Amino acid sequence: MSLFERLKTAAATDWNAYVDHAFVRGLGDGTLPEAAFRNYLVQDYLFLIQFARAHALAAYKSRTMADMRAAKDGLAAIVDVEMNLHLRLCERWGLSAADVEAAPEQRATVAYTRFVLDIGMSGDLLDLQVALIPCTLGYAEIGRRLAPGGIGALDAAHPYRAWIAEYAGEAFQQVGVAAHAWLDDLGRRYASDNRFGELVDIFAKAARLEADFWQQGLDAAQG
Amino acid sequence: MSLFERLKTAAATDWNAYVDHAFVRGLGDGTLPEAAFRNYLVQDYLFLIQFARAHALAAYKSRTMADMRAAKDGLAAIVDVEMNLHLRLCERWGLSAADVEAAPEQRATVAYTRFVLDIGMSGDLLDLQVALIPCTLGYAEIGRRLAPGGIGALDAAHPYRAWIAEYAGEAFQQVGVAAHAWLDDLGRRYASDNRFGELVDIFAKAARLEADFWQQGLDAAQG
Amino acid sequence: MSLFERLKTAAATDWNAYVDHAFVRGLGDGTLPEAAFRNYLVQDYLFLIQFARAHALAAYKSRTMADMRAAKDGLAAIVDVEMNLHLRLCERWGLSAADVEAAPEQRATVAYTRFVLDIGMSGDLLDLQVALIPCTLGYAEIGRRLAPGGIGALDAAHPYRAWIAEYAGEAFQQVGVAAHAWLDDLGRRYASDNRFGELVDIFAKAARLEADFWQQGLDAAQG
Amino acid sequence: MSLFERLKTAAATDWNAYVDHAFVRGLGDGTLPEAAFRNYLVQDYLFLIQFARAHALAAYKSRTMADMRAAKDGLAAIVDVEMNLHLRLCERWGLSAADVEAAPEQRATVAYTRFVLDIGMSGDLLDLQVALIPCTLGYAEIGRRLAPGGIGALDAAHPYRAWIAEYAGEAFQQVGVAAHAWLDDLGRRYASDNRFGELVDIFAKAARLEADFWQQGLDAAQG
Repeated sequence: MSLFERLKTAAATDWNAYVDHAFVRGLGDGTLPEAAFRNYLVQDYLFLIQFARAHALAAYKSRTMADMRAAKDGLAAIVDVEMNLHLRLCERWGLSAADVEAAPEQRATVAYTRFVLDIGMSGDLLDLQVALIPCTLGYAEIGRRLAPGGIGALDAAHPYRAWIAEYAGEAFQQVGVAAHAWLDDLGRRYASDNRFGELVDIFAKAARLEADFWQQGLDAAQG
Repeated sequence: MSLFERLKTAAATDWNAYVDHAFVRGLGDGTLPEAAFRNYLVQDYLFLIQFARAHALAAYKSRTMADMRAAKDGLAAIVDVEMNLHLRLCERWGLSAADVEAAPEQRATVAYTRFVLDIGMSGDLLDLQVALIPCTLGYAEIGRRLAPGGIGALDAAHPYRAWIAEYAGEAFQQVGVAAHAWLDDLGRRYASDNRFGELVDIFAKAARLEADFWQQGLDAAQG
Repeated sequence: MSLFERLKTAAATDWNAYVDHAFVRGLGDGTLPEAAFRNYLVQDYLFLIQFARAHALAAYKSRTMADMRAAKDGLAAIVDVEMNLHLRLCERWGLSAADVEAAPEQRATVAYTRFVLDIGMSGDLLDLQVALIPCTLGYAEIGRRLAPGGIGALDAAHPYRAWIAEYAGEAFQQVGVAAHAWLDDLGRRYASDNRFGELVDIFAKAARLEADFWQQGLDAAQG
Repeated sequence: MSLFERLKTAAATDWNAYVDHAFVRGLGDGTLPEAAFRNYLVQDYLFLIQFARAHALAAYKSRTMADMRAAKDGLAAIVDVEMNLHLRLCERWGLSAADVEAAPEQRATVAYTRFVLDIGMSGDLLDLQVALIPCTLGYAEIGRRLAPGGIGALDAAHPYRAWIAEYAGEAFQQVGVAAHAWLDDLGRRYASDNRFGELVDIFAKAARLEADFWQQGLDAAQG
């Protein structure tokens, strides 16, 4: 069993509360209120900025050129590709880049992103990746789950089709495969039985903070 | 006007929402639900652990022995004095040290503490102190505000007398005076007109995250 | 006068000892012993690895997307372009990539690179760039100085023609122009009169550690 | 075998070159030139400043209160005790505190101290302690080695008696015992077979940089 699978098994309750959150189910069946999605989109852009910083931190922490290249490619993918895709999606929902960039960070956004950065700075590269991986592999799993028949099978009128297609799509799934392989490689080098409990704590806390991030979107629709 | 006064003036709305929060008023007039206070006490202990790390970070970031001594003294005061006082206060409210240390961090606790640590790591020593100061000087101001006639004038039966007395007391007020002086000294060395807006943003965000921390206590009583 | 020009003027002795070091003069007139150059080439590759980490650190420390993009582009330029160019130059001098990557770091390599990383981590983004800039703009100045008539005017038989051409060339000169502009922009945002002396200390120390790096090459030829 | 013993065995050549360096032998038999010792004393004070920062970094990196207390106590011991002892020793050798604090850091001082800080920041708490331990336990071993019959057996006229007595003395030996125990505890929690090679690399490099630090003292006497 890969390190990721072991972490997921050990933190099953927190993991499932995250990937099967009411926000996610609403995304899947199209019942998610638009206000919730709009709030999420803006916060997710602000999240990506910090996520880019976390990949830069991984490059700083790298002791092999292979690790540094993996981190650098992750940073470039976020800054050069994902952030632009994200702003285009925002525009389709009537949110201009200027609006999005000027929005204040909400509490769950601050909590998850700064937790990851702090774990990464205070621990080693493995700690950092364990804190980051619920985002990458959680979204990959959610993408597959919400498009069980593939992107083509999604209803063209589904309000969240573009979002689901992005994460169910081949490009993002490959990002997930690479992140999974990198985590396992770091695990082989740095994990140990004695350390496993602490890694589970980090992973489970990150999953809970991701679930808080979904909840923050739902709460915005009820404000 | 000192740097602290300038920051407070520039972020007056956020500052007032923090030092005059409903939680604080409830502490002052004794109407705060006990469940809110208990939840706050536990989270505040977890907060102190991260606050100690922030002072350690300040020592790491110091370039003069005077800065290093100020940071080291702050670290020692938290670890050797405040945390013990805090655990004793918890015990008076029926919370054992073991309970407190085993409690999970709640969202607002994570958000404020990791924000401070990240600002401090990504910026310089002045940034770090600007992010920390709303805690120290906010509590000093709240202490004075809730005991306008001095500690002796507080009703002996006031449920939150011990808490108010700690922060209104001479020892903590002197901590505040020293922190104020240190911030002004850092301001003289590192602040500039062009940088002021960014410092205000940090200060205001820290004040908002402190207000969220009070709110987290209130929310716990309504759960 | 730009911040860089002010720093150079204030640290003129250290700056000149670096850009006009005996190693540099030997590079220019072709009298540098081959053993000195070979030792330098290997250490400079190890230097680049740490220099890449320093740019990753700058991306982590960025608070605007413009800063982050500048840092990310710098990181990518080192990892994707400069390191490969460097390995090719090494091969022309009979040093395989495997040899170079397996070489231990020498003392001056450790001293300069870790000084930059520590200044960058303990200070802010401006501190980091002030510690980095002697490398980028020093090499750009040396490149121009050693090819006063342009690259075309260099003797085809000059033993260090390829090295000089790289740093005198348009691509590297443009890297220098961009780094200069970025430093000035950071200076406008974060420098102040009171802070200037500390910035000069960082800049001058970095220049001395760069001179030590040249000297390390010369020492290797006398070993 | 403890982690420290395993590291020492794996890096035996580098370790012996450090603890049995010509500088150390000269300290032991009293033949070390005074100029070498004076240069060393000044640089060692500058070293202590960075060593204090490294202990502050350890406190920042701590995830248990036991780790934090160990780091905080180490920081306090350096700033409150060792630095004062050191300045008094300097005074006995005609070096005023003002002279010492104004002295520029030499290359080997920068190299070792910033290497430790960078390893500690880029890695985890175990990496940091592995990089620090050659200093603490090397000096403890040297102290015992240079006073085989105990401090009382040292010739009262030995020029380096005070220095030897400090490190052979009970107080410093106990610091060594505590550091040894802390390292082993961190080893139990974070080391693994796969990671051992990397830890040896850090330990061996730190030992070499310590040997360079002794050599720097000898070189100063020949300048």
